[in-house]
Amino acid sequence: MVVFDQKAANGTKSSSPSANNSKPISFSSNSTINLDQGDPTVFEPYWRKMGDKCTMVISASDSMSYFSDAGNLCWFLEPKLADAIRNLHREIGNAISNGRHIMVGTGSTQLYQAALYALSSPEGTQPISVVSAAPYYSQYPEETDYLRSGLYKWAGDAYKFDKDDGAYIEVVNSPSNPDGSIREAVVNRAGGKLIHDLAYYWPQYTPITHPADHDIMLFTFSKCTGHAGSRIGWALVKDTEVARKMIKFIELSSIGVSKESQLRAAMILGTLSHSYQNFSSNIPDNFFEYSHCLLAERWKKLREVVERSELFSLPDYPLKHCNFTGKFSQSHPAFAWLQCKEDIDSEKLIKAHKMMVRGGVRFGVEPNYARVSMLSSESVFNIFLQRLSAIGNHLSVMNRGP
Amino acid sequence: MVVFDQKAANGTKSSSPSANNSKPISFSSNSTINLDQGDPTVFEPYWRKMGDKCTMVISASDSMSYFSDAGNLCWFLEPKLADAIRNLHREIGNAISNGRHIMVGTGSTQLYQAALYALSSPEGTQPISVVSAAPYYSQYPEETDYLRSGLYKWAGDAYKFDKDDGAYIEVVNSPSNPDGSIREAVVNRAGGKLIHDLAYYWPQYTPITHPADHDIMLFTFSKCTGHAGSRIGWALVKDTEVARKMIKFIELSSIGVSKESQLRAAMILGTLSHSYQNFSSNIPDNFFEYSHCLLAERWKKLREVVERSELFSLPDYPLKHCNFTGKFSQSHPAFAWLQCKEDIDSEKLIKAHKMMVRGGVRFGVEPNYARVSMLSSESVFNIFLQRLSAIGNHLSVMNRGP
Repeated sequence: MVVFDQKAANGTKSSSPSANNSKPISFSSNSTINLDQGDPTVFEPYWRKMGDKCTMVISASDSMSYFSDAGNLCWFLEPKLADAIRNLHREIGNAISNGRHIMVGTGSTQLYQAALYALSSPEGTQPISVVSAAPYYSQYPEETDYLRSGLYKWAGDAYKFDKDDGAYIEVVNSPSNPDGSIREAVVNRAGGKLIHDLAYYWPQYTPITHPADHDIMLFTFSKCTGHAGSRIGWALVKDTEVARKMIKFIELSSIGVSKESQLRAAMILGTLSHSYQNFSSNIPDNFFEYSHCLLAERWKKLREVVERSELFSLPDYPLKHCNFTGKFSQSHPAFAWLQCKEDIDSEKLIKAHKMMVRGGVRFGVEPNYARVSMLSSESVFNIFLQRLSAIGNHLSVMNRGP
Repeated sequence: MVVFDQKAANGTKSSSPSANNSKPISFSSNSTINLDQGDPTVFEPYWRKMGDKCTMVISASDSMSYFSDAGNLCWFLEPKLADAIRNLHREIGNAISNGRHIMVGTGSTQLYQAALYALSSPEGTQPISVVSAAPYYSQYPEETDYLRSGLYKWAGDAYKFDKDDGAYIEVVNSPSNPDGSIREAVVNRAGGKLIHDLAYYWPQYTPITHPADHDIMLFTFSKCTGHAGSRIGWALVKDTEVARKMIKFIELSSIGVSKESQLRAAMILGTLSHSYQNFSSNIPDNFFEYSHCLLAERWKKLREVVERSELFSLPDYPLKHCNFTGKFSQSHPAFAWLQCKEDIDSEKLIKAHKMMVRGGVRFGVEPNYARVSMLSSESVFNIFLQRLSAIGNHLSVMNRGP
């Protein structure tokens, strides 16, 4: 299994010169487009319009030490980033951050593994079972098992978990990658430990209905603002001993986290908070309104194509009140979870039309599902709509027969 | 075992306001100083003198994608960093980089683990043994074993490795942390695999006698220029399949490496190469000459104190020709490897005099050894010399009796 498919990646590269250009361009009829990873280039034009407002300047002698805040439990966390994270959660209302330990990781990927380490026991004779409700994020199984740890072990779909002997970790990914649904823990048994992966609990993707308040909550800069290249994630953690063990993991894994990325994230997240403290509804000054509109528009276009094609269906999302925008809205997830109505391998079918996507089997469900990124550049998204229409037309012609 | 001791870290913090000040300051009589981790703040004044020459400016829309170079095997490596690394090795002459795969990691710590993953076999029924000649780097055992991997397992001192059943990985750390010696593989048995950790093979620490040319060579920005906070390491790898597996590890561990840190490292390493291509011996324009002089001066002072004390000894380093400077020189390692001549726990003794250091047991040898960082700020280094003198005086008074 390849996480970042080389051919797909090349597809991304060939499309990147068009990132500034919303018109479908000449490579559209030949090149494979990459809708596999959810690279959030959709937000790039917003940050380009910001010009110098969030430009970071760092001299050669800045931040040379391993230490950011030696007196803090998380000694490698830049205090400015901690402040920006707390302020942003307070402004958005999506999570309780006061009174929680904040720790930074090299993406939430590293923090997921830190949480597994912190919740497992070095004294255990058996690795603790790790489960998540299917369709689950396709990387959880491999991120859990690639080192064949004696501490923890992937045990699959939480709905099917029936081990009688106690301890388990359930990962609750809400809104869910791949299907955008709002999730709660499903095992709910004594001895269970929870990790809440809330990467997509931001107003552009889903209505903010309440401030989340769980033992371990993971967030990532990649999905919040689109800065995937910075590899910055953060965790909000209630228990001090769990926090201490997560920090220990990051010490052993990478002796902390890039200061440059932390300082840039602090500046960008700080600017977002500041724009809400000085509220104005002008686009593009308010990132979440801007990106909410952008994704709502993409989802509208996609639903039109899918309805016309009659080959695929998409999940429906209930209308909910968003405390942040003050309006009722549906979810507009970062991924489209396409279900083929016929018994066809959706990934293969879509790939045959030169689109790299990720099939249902990777998420623990049937191959007639496929996950498609909604976060590509505008030009790639438009090609996606054209090609998806073409699949529908092509098959309906075939079904009518010669 | 704590990698980054909280109390020691606080010691660093309390000393940091004096980083600009070479005079011993008022906290000297009370505060604990941290000489435990090798935080390379010694080089900070050099980079401060560089002013704006290596200042990085990065706007909010730069480097947002996961991808740096989608067509490259190491798709998350910034091409500018790859170029800077190749050029620098060519200028310094410390490693063959042409025709090698270059990959970047979140410090060489992450690359060490990537190399273990790449050299072990998922099909193996037993974890492969990992060894290194004692005194070995104190973090190897815990970085190898903290996840209780079924792929690899720490097996201790390479000199004592006597397993008959074949496969092993030997880590060759040269110049060695902690003792500064030049190392070669010691097991030399069929089926053995080697990782060369060359973090300190730079002209400020040791004469560059030849360009190293091994299967897997690890380097780190932290020890090359002192930018520990950036968490940038790199590996030079001969075999494509090994490189592919190391990349896979970094994908699963953190989905790549901070672009901000990579771009800053590219700029700073690029400036170093450029200064040698336009050679001038003026200090401070040439970093390696400047830092070589600085460490030579510190070692001279330390040896004077140690000789006077008659309590400790230091290793001797042979005079060798350095191809880079064109001169004969001894090594001036990043750590002093102090051996107490009496049967005393050196770490405890030195700690009693308010200096955090790391004792011999952590490196697989006797407790009368202790590792002391030579890379602290000037003021902390001066306090270290004073306190070390005081230990000697104190004990010699005790030995003379009342």
